[in-house]
Amino acid sequence: MVFKIFKKKNEETFPLPGRVSTDKEELFCYGFDSSSIQGEPSAVVKPVSTDEVSQMVAFANKQRTPIVARGAGTGMTGGAVPVKDAIILSLDSMNKILEIDERNMIAVVEPGVINGHLQEQLEAKGLFYPPDPSSMNYCTLGGNVAENAGGPRAIKYGVTRDYVLGLEVVLPDGRVMMTGGKTYKNVVGYDLTRLIVGSEGTLCVVTKIFLKVLPLPAETMTLLCTYSEINDAALTVSKITSSGIIPRVLEFMDNESVRAVENYRQFGLPTDAEALLLIEVDGSRASVSEEADKIVSICTSLNARVRIAEDMFAKKRIWEARRAISPALYRIKPTKINEDIVVPRGRIPEMLQALKEISEKYNLKIVNFGHAGDGNIHVNVMTDKNDKGEYERAKNSVKDIFQATLKLEGTISGEHGVGLTKKQYVGMELSDTSIEIMKAIKNVFDPNGIMNPGKMFP
Amino acid sequence: MVFKIFKKKNEETFPLPGRVSTDKEELFCYGFDSSSIQGEPSAVVKPVSTDEVSQMVAFANKQRTPIVARGAGTGMTGGAVPVKDAIILSLDSMNKILEIDERNMIAVVEPGVINGHLQEQLEAKGLFYPPDPSSMNYCTLGGNVAENAGGPRAIKYGVTRDYVLGLEVVLPDGRVMMTGGKTYKNVVGYDLTRLIVGSEGTLCVVTKIFLKVLPLPAETMTLLCTYSEINDAALTVSKITSSGIIPRVLEFMDNESVRAVENYRQFGLPTDAEALLLIEVDGSRASVSEEADKIVSICTSLNARVRIAEDMFAKKRIWEARRAISPALYRIKPTKINEDIVVPRGRIPEMLQALKEISEKYNLKIVNFGHAGDGNIHVNVMTDKNDKGEYERAKNSVKDIFQATLKLEGTISGEHGVGLTKKQYVGMELSDTSIEIMKAIKNVFDPNGIMNPGKMFP
Repeated sequence: MVFKIFKKKNEETFPLPGRVSTDKEELFCYGFDSSSIQGEPSAVVKPVSTDEVSQMVAFANKQRTPIVARGAGTGMTGGAVPVKDAIILSLDSMNKILEIDERNMIAVVEPGVINGHLQEQLEAKGLFYPPDPSSMNYCTLGGNVAENAGGPRAIKYGVTRDYVLGLEVVLPDGRVMMTGGKTYKNVVGYDLTRLIVGSEGTLCVVTKIFLKVLPLPAETMTLLCTYSEINDAALTVSKITSSGIIPRVLEFMDNESVRAVENYRQFGLPTDAEALLLIEVDGSRASVSEEADKIVSICTSLNARVRIAEDMFAKKRIWEARRAISPALYRIKPTKINEDIVVPRGRIPEMLQALKEISEKYNLKIVNFGHAGDGNIHVNVMTDKNDKGEYERAKNSVKDIFQATLKLEGTISGEHGVGLTKKQYVGMELSDTSIEIMKAIKNVFDPNGIMNPGKMFP
Repeated sequence: MVFKIFKKKNEETFPLPGRVSTDKEELFCYGFDSSSIQGEPSAVVKPVSTDEVSQMVAFANKQRTPIVARGAGTGMTGGAVPVKDAIILSLDSMNKILEIDERNMIAVVEPGVINGHLQEQLEAKGLFYPPDPSSMNYCTLGGNVAENAGGPRAIKYGVTRDYVLGLEVVLPDGRVMMTGGKTYKNVVGYDLTRLIVGSEGTLCVVTKIFLKVLPLPAETMTLLCTYSEINDAALTVSKITSSGIIPRVLEFMDNESVRAVENYRQFGLPTDAEALLLIEVDGSRASVSEEADKIVSICTSLNARVRIAEDMFAKKRIWEARRAISPALYRIKPTKINEDIVVPRGRIPEMLQALKEISEKYNLKIVNFGHAGDGNIHVNVMTDKNDKGEYERAKNSVKDIFQATLKLEGTISGEHGVGLTKKQYVGMELSDTSIEIMKAIKNVFDPNGIMNPGKMFP
């Protein structure tokens, strides 16, 4: 496909001339995301309304020009990286919180609203939006919808999909469609809302999001548990969940992640720990203290040292450390291959063992952390792109990691999506039949294949 | 379409001869559901395995014969009522609980398992499956998946969709496809699982269901609150939810429902009450008593008399009364037109007012009860099919009810589905564009249109 807009200026009336940039720096900056893959778009368009999105998308469709909707570019799998000469449709100017309906506990937002910004506005009103990807202070809710983003609180509260009640979307031909709405229940027709959530911008462009919100829990308590045996930490995870408690956070960090974070900035984490669990409970005052007591007793019975964050500052510090893992890992090696596999949570010990064996087999450093509570482990194969031999080994290890994951009844992606980096592996998990059905559904929405092409499918 | 199997016995090898019945009584019994609409199937087939389902569906597809998968036939909207001469694929013999995986909190079941049967098995192990349609002691989990069934506990715990992690399905051409699986998170490809949940048997046949289960709450407390002003009851609903408490049940019954139930069987409900709220909280012992205290004080401040169910028997009795509403209503009039609209919960008072006006306009008795906590009201227009004039007025009132619902940003069905009874109204809620997309998706799965035809779309 050849991008024709600027060459054929006089033949076609280009919509939104004031919103377009072909400035080289802009093209560079909007060409990559957190996967570090660099694409080469031919233009960046910044619409400010649904109508402008509609005009722009319809134009691209008529021209058969690829178009890639984009939020803040914090995605890990290259979902926002354009194929060559695509138009970037940057939605960061559509960043208004349109409504916070306290009575009905619903928020209506434009796709460019930053997740953390909505969280702040809601908390000031005693409300709560649970999905909290580590990039929450930068990532947009539109991007969260496109990727079905999760986060540490998913163990108790679920992922983005569980909060999206409805969407306004623009179809490739420019038509505006509403799915779902303002009610918590709705069974009229097929569930297009949840088909679009997680579709990585390959079906349509989301222009408005209707979110369910919750009452803000009265109390939260944050515990940091230090283990000298990694197995004790894994056992703790099983014991807590089978005890009938669902903490709101149950995060795991291995020794390498702890040391990387401390090396990055001194948060005061115990660098001699073989593993850390970061546990948070929330609810009414009474239930928080009851649950925390039970958890402390489980942890100490498994030889953990337990520290309770005594105030807001201590909590904040622990969370800053947790959110620093991803950038901190670059202190170990300049390149990381970042996976987010999930196994049924009882199988985490087997998965960690498999990862250890893969690390030995390929002579590579593999750093693991993540959402132990729902079996979602961020596996980071540390390497250096310039060391050809090692980088080759690192890339080869990925297939082994996925094979081990699938053998344990897992999935190759829990919350980062497929994008570019995982599309070659999708066939390991999905059958030919289901890929065929998915591609046919894509074709229903986007017969000309202009919406974020080259993603998600092998 | 003409059903050819039995006429052309010699030309086609009919699969599963031992599983087929054309007995007149069977054809009658499998021809209707709780909508009371009577269809005329030409055969009832009872497969016992995925492979048998596959053979049968592929055969129907080859013959271009409609096929209608069916659970217990408790659906309210005619979803399981076959078009003339269709094959009924009764899944009640596929009723095995295949696995209860306590460590990973997952249950794997066949579609014919009764909802209440799974609940019992889980509770014995300290586990909990929240979705609880009123028919839970009869309805099948396959039917729950087809309709995306809800129930009173949806306010806190969500609906069937929120518990389905994966599905094994048979496509119309007989291919078996797996969607999702045993993990709580999965973003590989489009979310076919949730596209199929609620699709009313129009896409494929579900043969295995992977369900997420929860720890059984340590404690539940059941409150029955009696109001002499309906508005006070509606205000209580808003006040409770905005106080930060999400009860696990928040059910509403108007005076007519209370009287109908007491007339049906004497449960001891106060027949002079203008409205009742049935409220249940669950969680740890400490939080249950804290939340119940808060609720009691909200209710009494709004002039309610509050009764706390003192033991298991009292709780059971209250729930029997609640579940008896639907059958009990036939004591008022022999015919009911049964809707399940939803409005944002803060708009319930406006909706009740609108229903009162419609009842006066058409001179009809309208009885309301349901899941006030999530804005889901079961609106029952009581009439007599044999009274032509009244029945005509009753049917006409439905459009007014839906118009009022949609004006209040609601939906015409929260948990009963569209089936036959609501398909003519779907266009009031969904745009032509979204119906067009849905039909095209149906065509991707079922190009020959054999899967439960004539349902869901206008």
